[in-house]
Amino acid sequence: MDCLFCAIAAGDIPSRQVYADDAAIAFLDINPFKRGHTLVIPRRHVDDLLAPDEALTEIAPAVSATARLLTERLGADGVNLLVNSGSVAGQEVFHLHVHVVPRYTDDPGLRALTDRTPGIDLDEVAAALTE
Amino acid sequence: MDCLFCAIAAGDIPSRQVYADDAAIAFLDINPFKRGHTLVIPRRHVDDLLAPDEALTEIAPAVSATARLLTERLGADGVNLLVNSGSVAGQEVFHLHVHVVPRYTDDPGLRALTDRTPGIDLDEVAAALTE
Repeated sequence: MDCLFCAIAAGDIPSRQVYADDAAIAFLDINPFKRGHTLVIPRRHVDDLLAPDEALTEIAPAVSATARLLTERLGADGVNLLVNSGSVAGQEVFHLHVHVVPRYTDDPGLRALTDRTPGIDLDEVAAALTE
Repeated sequence: MDCLFCAIAAGDIPSRQVYADDAAIAFLDINPFKRGHTLVIPRRHVDDLLAPDEALTEIAPAVSATARLLTERLGADGVNLLVNSGSVAGQEVFHLHVHVVPRYTDDPGLRALTDRTPGIDLDEVAAALTE
């Protein structure tokens, strides 16, 4: 199995999973932009958004549920969704994934989305989301 | 009707529409990041992604179809999807919308997503997408 996210979906590589349904799993990004930055992926392998496929529709319920979970549990004031499809768009892992990024009033604005918040403790975040 | 995007969906305010289905319409952003930057919205009013609602799932097929249309017709090399939910995340119109932004090899990378390409002729882009 050569795909990192297929291995995570199969449980062969550990992740901090925060949500799952029949079509998708959601786990914390290990290099987060902001506290609670989560990736939602289809369980099955789909390269990217441009595949002739309805994978985005299949995972959309999990994306919505994850966005609500993050804002409710982490006290976020908003959320960005981001999909990078193709290397020119910044895609690094070629298994479709939706970034769900909680946003907070002390670090607002679209252009600050990709600025990384230092010192995030992923285990603390995972505990806040799953306890 | 106080919502700009409801008025566009109803046809009361003109837009350069490039795709539509029963749940959603897609039209060119009038202040585009890149050539072909399109917004996909639900026909019905939904404030944002955090509404207790499955609007994202309803419009996901139109988002996927629009992403494919833009890359096929405009020769894009990739695409970003972006949703800003809440003013802290950069939302400006409070009717759910998905930005579908084609990306080109001469202007690559995630951090360049919000840099605006100068001199885009929206009528030319609309013609390329609908002829």
